[in-house]
Amino acid sequence: MVFFPTTNQASSNSRLDYFYKPAGTNGKLNLRTDLPPAEIILIDYGKDKIEQMGILVPEEIGRYLDGETVSWIDVLGLGNLSMWQSLSQTLNLHHLLLEDIVNVPQRPKIEHHHQHLLLVSWMVVPVPDRRTFKREQISFILGDRYLLSVQEEPEDDCFQRVRERLQNPKSNVRQWGADYLLYCLLDAIIDGFFPVLEYYGEIIEELEDEVMRDPSSKTLQKIYQVRRELLNLRRAIWPQRDTINSLIRDGSELISHDVNIYLRDCYDRAIQVIDMVETYRELATGLMDVYLSSVSNKMNEVMKFLTVISAIFIPITFIAGVYGMNFNADKSPLNMPELAWYWGYPACLTLMAIVSGSSILFFWKWGWFDNFSKIK
Amino acid sequence: MVFFPTTNQASSNSRLDYFYKPAGTNGKLNLRTDLPPAEIILIDYGKDKIEQMGILVPEEIGRYLDGETVSWIDVLGLGNLSMWQSLSQTLNLHHLLLEDIVNVPQRPKIEHHHQHLLLVSWMVVPVPDRRTFKREQISFILGDRYLLSVQEEPEDDCFQRVRERLQNPKSNVRQWGADYLLYCLLDAIIDGFFPVLEYYGEIIEELEDEVMRDPSSKTLQKIYQVRRELLNLRRAIWPQRDTINSLIRDGSELISHDVNIYLRDCYDRAIQVIDMVETYRELATGLMDVYLSSVSNKMNEVMKFLTVISAIFIPITFIAGVYGMNFNADKSPLNMPELAWYWGYPACLTLMAIVSGSSILFFWKWGWFDNFSKIK
Amino acid sequence: MVFFPTTNQASSNSRLDYFYKPAGTNGKLNLRTDLPPAEIILIDYGKDKIEQMGILVPEEIGRYLDGETVSWIDVLGLGNLSMWQSLSQTLNLHHLLLEDIVNVPQRPKIEHHHQHLLLVSWMVVPVPDRRTFKREQISFILGDRYLLSVQEEPEDDCFQRVRERLQNPKSNVRQWGADYLLYCLLDAIIDGFFPVLEYYGEIIEELEDEVMRDPSSKTLQKIYQVRRELLNLRRAIWPQRDTINSLIRDGSELISHDVNIYLRDCYDRAIQVIDMVETYRELATGLMDVYLSSVSNKMNEVMKFLTVISAIFIPITFIAGVYGMNFNADKSPLNMPELAWYWGYPACLTLMAIVSGSSILFFWKWGWFDNFSKIK
Amino acid sequence: MVFFPTTNQASSNSRLDYFYKPAGTNGKLNLRTDLPPAEIILIDYGKDKIEQMGILVPEEIGRYLDGETVSWIDVLGLGNLSMWQSLSQTLNLHHLLLEDIVNVPQRPKIEHHHQHLLLVSWMVVPVPDRRTFKREQISFILGDRYLLSVQEEPEDDCFQRVRERLQNPKSNVRQWGADYLLYCLLDAIIDGFFPVLEYYGEIIEELEDEVMRDPSSKTLQKIYQVRRELLNLRRAIWPQRDTINSLIRDGSELISHDVNIYLRDCYDRAIQVIDMVETYRELATGLMDVYLSSVSNKMNEVMKFLTVISAIFIPITFIAGVYGMNFNADKSPLNMPELAWYWGYPACLTLMAIVSGSSILFFWKWGWFDNFSKIK
Amino acid sequence: MVFFPTTNQASSNSRLDYFYKPAGTNGKLNLRTDLPPAEIILIDYGKDKIEQMGILVPEEIGRYLDGETVSWIDVLGLGNLSMWQSLSQTLNLHHLLLEDIVNVPQRPKIEHHHQHLLLVSWMVVPVPDRRTFKREQISFILGDRYLLSVQEEPEDDCFQRVRERLQNPKSNVRQWGADYLLYCLLDAIIDGFFPVLEYYGEIIEELEDEVMRDPSSKTLQKIYQVRRELLNLRRAIWPQRDTINSLIRDGSELISHDVNIYLRDCYDRAIQVIDMVETYRELATGLMDVYLSSVSNKMNEVMKFLTVISAIFIPITFIAGVYGMNFNADKSPLNMPELAWYWGYPACLTLMAIVSGSSILFFWKWGWFDNFSKIK
Repeated sequence: MVFFPTTNQASSNSRLDYFYKPAGTNGKLNLRTDLPPAEIILIDYGKDKIEQMGILVPEEIGRYLDGETVSWIDVLGLGNLSMWQSLSQTLNLHHLLLEDIVNVPQRPKIEHHHQHLLLVSWMVVPVPDRRTFKREQISFILGDRYLLSVQEEPEDDCFQRVRERLQNPKSNVRQWGADYLLYCLLDAIIDGFFPVLEYYGEIIEELEDEVMRDPSSKTLQKIYQVRRELLNLRRAIWPQRDTINSLIRDGSELISHDVNIYLRDCYDRAIQVIDMVETYRELATGLMDVYLSSVSNKMNEVMKFLTVISAIFIPITFIAGVYGMNFNADKSPLNMPELAWYWGYPACLTLMAIVSGSSILFFWKWGWFDNFSKIK
Repeated sequence: MVFFPTTNQASSNSRLDYFYKPAGTNGKLNLRTDLPPAEIILIDYGKDKIEQMGILVPEEIGRYLDGETVSWIDVLGLGNLSMWQSLSQTLNLHHLLLEDIVNVPQRPKIEHHHQHLLLVSWMVVPVPDRRTFKREQISFILGDRYLLSVQEEPEDDCFQRVRERLQNPKSNVRQWGADYLLYCLLDAIIDGFFPVLEYYGEIIEELEDEVMRDPSSKTLQKIYQVRRELLNLRRAIWPQRDTINSLIRDGSELISHDVNIYLRDCYDRAIQVIDMVETYRELATGLMDVYLSSVSNKMNEVMKFLTVISAIFIPITFIAGVYGMNFNADKSPLNMPELAWYWGYPACLTLMAIVSGSSILFFWKWGWFDNFSKIK
Repeated sequence: MVFFPTTNQASSNSRLDYFYKPAGTNGKLNLRTDLPPAEIILIDYGKDKIEQMGILVPEEIGRYLDGETVSWIDVLGLGNLSMWQSLSQTLNLHHLLLEDIVNVPQRPKIEHHHQHLLLVSWMVVPVPDRRTFKREQISFILGDRYLLSVQEEPEDDCFQRVRERLQNPKSNVRQWGADYLLYCLLDAIIDGFFPVLEYYGEIIEELEDEVMRDPSSKTLQKIYQVRRELLNLRRAIWPQRDTINSLIRDGSELISHDVNIYLRDCYDRAIQVIDMVETYRELATGLMDVYLSSVSNKMNEVMKFLTVISAIFIPITFIAGVYGMNFNADKSPLNMPELAWYWGYPACLTLMAIVSGSSILFFWKWGWFDNFSKIK
Repeated sequence: MVFFPTTNQASSNSRLDYFYKPAGTNGKLNLRTDLPPAEIILIDYGKDKIEQMGILVPEEIGRYLDGETVSWIDVLGLGNLSMWQSLSQTLNLHHLLLEDIVNVPQRPKIEHHHQHLLLVSWMVVPVPDRRTFKREQISFILGDRYLLSVQEEPEDDCFQRVRERLQNPKSNVRQWGADYLLYCLLDAIIDGFFPVLEYYGEIIEELEDEVMRDPSSKTLQKIYQVRRELLNLRRAIWPQRDTINSLIRDGSELISHDVNIYLRDCYDRAIQVIDMVETYRELATGLMDVYLSSVSNKMNEVMKFLTVISAIFIPITFIAGVYGMNFNADKSPLNMPELAWYWGYPACLTLMAIVSGSSILFFWKWGWFDNFSKIK
Repeated sequence: MVFFPTTNQASSNSRLDYFYKPAGTNGKLNLRTDLPPAEIILIDYGKDKIEQMGILVPEEIGRYLDGETVSWIDVLGLGNLSMWQSLSQTLNLHHLLLEDIVNVPQRPKIEHHHQHLLLVSWMVVPVPDRRTFKREQISFILGDRYLLSVQEEPEDDCFQRVRERLQNPKSNVRQWGADYLLYCLLDAIIDGFFPVLEYYGEIIEELEDEVMRDPSSKTLQKIYQVRRELLNLRRAIWPQRDTINSLIRDGSELISHDVNIYLRDCYDRAIQVIDMVETYRELATGLMDVYLSSVSNKMNEVMKFLTVISAIFIPITFIAGVYGMNFNADKSPLNMPELAWYWGYPACLTLMAIVSGSSILFFWKWGWFDNFSKIK
């Protein structure tokens, strides 16, 4: 039974999301060998020029690294082993760096090596039907005049606006170095959390209405699901905050002081995301309480309905039972003389009407009838 | 269905309150272009003189900045782009400062730039019908001899008393510099939280009575709503505390030592606000528990009522049923001879009275009748 | 409806306890002008002499400040403005100190000024009928040879034992300076929390019995009330701990090293109070859970009772119903021949007895009758 | 009503456990004067010799303090004032030290004085019938060549094994100084927590079975009691951890570096105790949830039982009611001709059997009968 | 009653898991004397050679320690006293080290001695039928050119992959020293947590389905069990994180800088495990809430079913009762003339059909029939 709708693509990280990296990977690249090499897009830009090209042979990149320009090497997908071997040779990457990039998923982190800065980050992308979100690892290697970014999957990314801005020769990003590009991409990643948050905000608002108006077991499932997804979201943003914070605090010779100031902005945004996730989590927990109370309320109404039916009919059924008794009036004048009275039957019906009527009157005064419309 | 009354103005931040700043704003001012320039009020004061005027052309302000006087430039509303360009030129503001002021909402924070101190703060204003509160960003830029304050919306502010005190030539604020004015405004902002808190205090007191006396599903909604609003209130005050604290701790050359001492007072007040918000939050959580228990209690009473009705009538209905049986007395003297007894019918009625009477007696001794008045 | 008994005096801080200091008090003394000057008691003591007198004109105090003796100036009540003006002149008090003393309530805190040490503290006094407690601000100003203590209200204080000890020429307090007196008074304030705690301890013990034996909606109210009061108590003791701690840690030239060691004792006691408050709070929370479970248990018993009644009578009422049918025996020998049997009626009654008896037997074996005594 | 079995001895600290030290004890020894002097046992040992004796006159101890041997002065009980006066004179103890020893209970703590180290510790002893535990203060004063240990009550202690090891001339404790003895005793005290923990572990296991199998209101009481006791246990172990930690961190000239290493072991054990207490507390909290769910489950079964009885009999009672109507067949051939049919009565009974049988079939298919064995 | 299936082997640490180390073990090795010596496997390797042998006499090991090779001495089981005595003599181990190895279980920790580094770690092994996990202590002693690892039990370990890699002359582990071997083994231990986590992840997913679809008291048991096991898992991983962290932070001369970098990877993995354990724990707690709500939901459905039955039949049974009354039509024309009407009986049946039909209609419109399929 699949009661939590999840798309196939996203199912791998939208439910419990354990990521089992098989034992003994240390010193080994964990690449799926059946994949073709990944697409590599190189954007080489400076103040006055920008060039964008697809790279087929990683060694080509070497030609672009010497000049005054900044090179953004964007690798779309994890590719295969041979590609990485030539890439790491070209860029002179340490083996450990490569491991962290390739053996996904890693927790977001930052690592300083002589000439490089490794930054592992997580991007979230809303899944098309938007019932959940997809998490994707993006690793960055910052060198002196280049930035290598590696995306776990080739399909989506949230860098479109950065690419657009690169086309504008007057934009900041064209004036500054690779470190500013890194900041722009990080900022875009953090910004990518907001549409997901917005989506969960909407769901919680819907659930608030639903839980008050018509709580069903489906509502319960949805609340639980939201809690789980927010838990996953929290796990995705927390380590990023720590990463950015340690980047700001410790600095790096690869990152200029001015860019460091911009990173603080990025940190503020991450805090904002965490803030909202925590608030939503508290709201979802509160909703669970409200749900339980609502169910109790509804049961109360059902109980009252049963009680009303019983209290109206049980007494008058008893009266009918009494006059259905067969005491023999012939043997004794005391035996049920009412049955022979002229007004006997009408009087009996009247009595019944009075009894049930007074019950109804009481219930009406207690306001029990007001809420029966809600016991659907 | 709108079950949480919120005014239209306030709805944007009284419910889930996500603030989605679109991706890629870095380096861009996020101004709504369709707005007229904001109203600017300049109060220029010194020990012996005070002058207040509306400013139409921002460049005019330059004339007032050189002298010995302190200038409070109060911008009511975010205005439009051209206004900000001339204003930032006049005051020589860095681009990043402008971004934080204009791209609302920002989390409250403090940033030190060479000649300026940026302080972003949040003001809360009770909404007229007072069912919720409105949050508004106020940004301050403190210069050497001036203070620029920018209010997100022109309507309300909580600075009236500061303006009144400025008129008094003997007040502290007239003797000191722009830093003291900043302190006064910050203090007024923190003070603005108290009416909101007072309001929620009243609501909680009402809910305490309601939840004990007559818990309905509306009570539940209100409790949940209060919890949500207090969550929002907490999110509004926490970062301010951190801001003030870091201002006190790190100091700034723009803030004199004496004003720093006054700021500690401000910090104490912020702690007080947090303290109360947390207490109210705990009380609201406690109320939810009480609510659930109250509903269970009420269901208990309904159940008892049903049980009383059943226990009284079911046994005597059975007795009536017995004497309604048609066993043929003609065929056997053992067949229901009671029906032919002289005292048969009265005896039967008496039996019924005894049976039901003893039930009633038991219930009365158990005290079940005492609480039926509460089962509305 | 007042369901939480609170005396009138205490109501101001026993319920939600928000303390709204009106906006814009900075730089202003918030004194009620309609009050007479407060009573001032001066105790001037040294190793060999002690003198106690009522002070009517604050300026008189000046005469006692020069000598070798220690002066304890005990101000009972907040008094009026003119009193404070002359008092602050006599003692040379800074305006800010005065504000913190007079604009009650302040959070407990400590502030160092050149010649003075300000310590704001909260005293709790059990309210006579002891259903709640009253909180009162006591401010201390420690000078070189004197200690000024200001009590918010003149009625109660917990300093009686200190006054007694002062009469004993061999007591420590007579040998040491004003700093030791401050320690003694602080210690007496912390000690004053224990009777209040003891009282709540007793209430919790009572509630433990009540919630198990006979949980009613009044129990629920009491549990909630205890939680709220403990919340208030926690808010009263936490800041004091921080105050004493910062006094120990930072020291002050006004406090000798030896007294600092004694203050550690005071800190230990404050920790003890916090420890107990937290324990009581956890117990009260646990009680709420127990209450909910108890109510469910009771409902269970009511349900069982109803079920027993139904299970016993419904089947035999059906049997009676069957033999009340009017099938015409004349038309067919198959139509209810039982009605004409010689043993028909006794057999029918026996059948009923067997059916209901076996129901009773089952319930008895299940032990359902054991608990009915508890369903009051 | 005493529903929590507690022995008389233990009742003072097994329930709410407030310890009210009357106000104004500073500078005063809080001794019960009606007690005889405490028993003092002196064990004087060195590498080659060991001597154990009862001390009647505290001054005697002086003779044993000069030599090369280590003296363990074990005071069993708090004794009376005169005993302490002579003891403190003999050992040259500061007045403040004495206060902490004698005015029980104190929170576990450590205090450094010139020549002495005071360590207040709490020992837990399982109460014979083991339904709870008893807490007892043990104070240590470590001098250069001696260790004074003061037990609050003379009866139990957990030092038996240390005494045995002292008899063994090859044991570590005989080779080292008084600091190692202190470590041994501390270790024995921490070890004393394990039997108590083991006991609560057993209770929780029992409760786990009980809460699933047969949850009654007694189970509820027991769960609550365990929670309370674990709360007390936590309050007993936490400060000890802090004490040992500060002893390790700050060191003392009275404690050699080697013993300091051993103390780390002691710290590890204390952490272990805390770890277990916290785990048990979480389990007990979880049990409360399980209990509530179990009660709901049971109520569900009772409801189902009632529903089964009702659903089977109510429809067929109605059928019987129909054929008990007295419509006059003589007046109209339409009036209840069934009553005169040849197969009328058997057909009616068959109809009833079908109706009730199909109800039973449904319930059986729904599996409702499976669980009735559990609704005891 | 055993309702939590646990294998016999694992029962010792899968339930409450208290580990009672008897008092007074300090200075004593807590070895079970009835055991044979443990199997010792020595793997002696260098860049170009590897030798693996079983060791029977511990003294033999001495021969392998001098050379250039690294020796991994793997002790499978705790063995007996004499074995340890000769082993500690051969390796020159301090007595305290031995205690920590042999007196299992110890909390994971790290201890620095002159020439050795002791690291106590916990390995988790899924129990064959995988209903729980087994925890086993592994102690490491790192010397200059050797690593001693001691496994609590000989059966399982998770080092198989490390052994395989050792066979590969090109692997890192063959190039580096004993410190890298320690890292490899630690990494394998942390990796060993993932299969256990994966297993609990699967259980939680199953429980999510079960709790929504068909919550029974077995579900409740399973949820509670998962919570308990995760609590144990948390207690197993937390101290390891601290251990690795302190190893990274404090360093050791026995661990080269390069290996230290690798250890950070190990730390990241431990964080990942903790992260997942905490997430699972929150999910399990959420499941308990969902369970409670589900049970309430189900009870609601049962109540509705009962109400439907009652509301349909009680009114028409009353009608039947009325026409079963025996009012004497001979005595009065008003006495139940309906009984003699030509269409009386059909009219009466029609009335009944209308009454019950309209009830059914209402319930159908309320949607009550939709959910009855779920009330199994």
